[in-house]
Amino acid sequence: MTQRFSFELQATDGRARSGVIRTTRGDIRTPAFMPVGTAATVKAMLPESVRATGADILLGNTYHLMLRPTAERIDRLGGLHRFMNWERPILTDSGGFQVMSLTDLRKLTEEGVEFRSHIDGSKHMLTPERSMEIQRLLGSDIVMCFDECPALPADRPRIEESMRLSMRWAERSRDAFGDRPGHALFGIQQGGLEQDLRAESAEALRAIGFDGYAIGGLAVGEGQEAMFGVLDFAPDMLPQDRPRYLMGVGKPDDIVGAVKRGVDMMDCVLPSRSGRTGQVFTRRGVVNIKNARHQDDPRPLDEHCTCPACQNYSRAYLHHVFRAHEIISSMLMTWHNLHYYQELMQGMRDAISAGCFADWEAGFHAERAQGDIEPL
Amino acid sequence: MTQRFSFELQATDGRARSGVIRTTRGDIRTPAFMPVGTAATVKAMLPESVRATGADILLGNTYHLMLRPTAERIDRLGGLHRFMNWERPILTDSGGFQVMSLTDLRKLTEEGVEFRSHIDGSKHMLTPERSMEIQRLLGSDIVMCFDECPALPADRPRIEESMRLSMRWAERSRDAFGDRPGHALFGIQQGGLEQDLRAESAEALRAIGFDGYAIGGLAVGEGQEAMFGVLDFAPDMLPQDRPRYLMGVGKPDDIVGAVKRGVDMMDCVLPSRSGRTGQVFTRRGVVNIKNARHQDDPRPLDEHCTCPACQNYSRAYLHHVFRAHEIISSMLMTWHNLHYYQELMQGMRDAISAGCFADWEAGFHAERAQGDIEPL
Repeated sequence: MTQRFSFELQATDGRARSGVIRTTRGDIRTPAFMPVGTAATVKAMLPESVRATGADILLGNTYHLMLRPTAERIDRLGGLHRFMNWERPILTDSGGFQVMSLTDLRKLTEEGVEFRSHIDGSKHMLTPERSMEIQRLLGSDIVMCFDECPALPADRPRIEESMRLSMRWAERSRDAFGDRPGHALFGIQQGGLEQDLRAESAEALRAIGFDGYAIGGLAVGEGQEAMFGVLDFAPDMLPQDRPRYLMGVGKPDDIVGAVKRGVDMMDCVLPSRSGRTGQVFTRRGVVNIKNARHQDDPRPLDEHCTCPACQNYSRAYLHHVFRAHEIISSMLMTWHNLHYYQELMQGMRDAISAGCFADWEAGFHAERAQGDIEPL
Repeated sequence: MTQRFSFELQATDGRARSGVIRTTRGDIRTPAFMPVGTAATVKAMLPESVRATGADILLGNTYHLMLRPTAERIDRLGGLHRFMNWERPILTDSGGFQVMSLTDLRKLTEEGVEFRSHIDGSKHMLTPERSMEIQRLLGSDIVMCFDECPALPADRPRIEESMRLSMRWAERSRDAFGDRPGHALFGIQQGGLEQDLRAESAEALRAIGFDGYAIGGLAVGEGQEAMFGVLDFAPDMLPQDRPRYLMGVGKPDDIVGAVKRGVDMMDCVLPSRSGRTGQVFTRRGVVNIKNARHQDDPRPLDEHCTCPACQNYSRAYLHHVFRAHEIISSMLMTWHNLHYYQELMQGMRDAISAGCFADWEAGFHAERAQGDIEPL
């Protein structure tokens, strides 16, 4: 019998929540961070290594996959899980956000968005119906509604109009998704920084009914303070008994602030992208490995970290391979960053379960405030 | 007590030999293929993955490492093994070959070679004494004499002059190397395609006395037929009781032909470099993964191969990630190629031990002659 998609809230501490999402492909411990596997790979990582960092679920990008290798091809090859050798849950975005951020020459209508591929200029159309079809072909476990979202700052009429369009698309997404046991459909709240628009959006989504609810339209240029301002009210507008997913967030302190405010799931390219540019996250803040101060440093990035980069290599080595443009540089530092992010999530899950999230958060900020270890 | 460097010849079949080289850092089964770890990394591989392919020893490049991160820095950091997280044996070349092939503006004298770095244009000098010092600082287990070698074709006077210079440098290398228990020094035979010069070179090296003997100056443009012509006589000029190392070789059929002619060790960038350019070695020959015929092919590169690329991914996936310029493409196809090379060596070692090398070789060529599997 197919395991139904479900969410079990196990503990709360203030507004922070911990729990577990159950899917046919395994459990997702929340709060959860989802590494991004844009083009059917988390860049520079083997999937078993991603799993070893503690990730329970990956995110795949509909926009990239529909263009190359195409959803139809992935379907013929047995679906995205088999294709990329990741048997655990996958969440796919709807493609809407990346159409707006990556393409020129797009045409937005009530029907959907027409655009040209950034790869070869070919013309494509995404609608709520087509997005649902693509995500079904990919075999996604958690499907996102097709929506539209303006970059911030934007004026209120633009945000209002966009949110209402997204709510009409949410209904079309729900209809097109149909009944697919074992697969979940998430609605996406919009409304920019406007509390009343967020409330209107949440109400519209609840009326339609979804398996989970995302907070969209943030981390699009508004800054952390404004984002936290929205997170002070937006999560509570969404059902308590469904997972809440903050899309595209973020830096470690963004993530901590979001969890504190009741968010259960997040995704971001930051740990993997930074791993390729030599930016490393540690408990004591950000380390830029290309800095010459590391070139003779025999110490690991973080002496307490159990990832392979920290267990087996010095800062001097990581500095060297980064400067020499060696692929192992991206491999090791991406691994470290994803490991760091998952350790962060585990720390928060444990703190919430133990009812000591405030202490944990104070420790998190105090450790970062120390800054990196002193040069030798 | 330090394990002395030794070579035990265990079986012969025709001129092909199998055995084991014992070092303080572990045994090397021969015939051995050494993956190349140019800049303290086998590109796109973690060292534990290189080991998992069956490699007993890596090659490091003196030229690259002396320029970046420098031998002195690696020494301060505990040596190359610790630096790159490879605790098994490492052979380092002398730097001579790459100075001649990678740099402009070099000046060759009796003393050594002055050259400018291809990285930053800085001026450097390599001599037999300096090469020995660098390889000592790196902590190399098998040190190569500093030599000089012309690209082929070259006229006989140039080859003769160059060989005699290399023999004088071999003696200086031997003197500079001194007595280092647990570390080995290999001489390098030169002499181009000329049998009498090869004999003269071998005699000079035997008079000096080395722990092993390399055949240099091949795989430099002469073609397989000419190379095999030299290998028909060159290995037998070298001591039977010492390992024989053919430098910079080669393609799978080069390797088989060399082992057949009495070679014990080889190295080449081909499996790793090809892994990054989408060229894959299989028992049925070379597969070019970027070819469109693979884009819908659910089959592995080689259904009998036990490497992760073949166990977990389709040709369609490898085609996709190669076309999308994803790092995992280099990771998986390098792994496959190194695995293929090590399987090839294991097959030859087993065949030599069993006394059926000729049959094994016939099977090797017959399987390749089939060409790749038919398109679907």
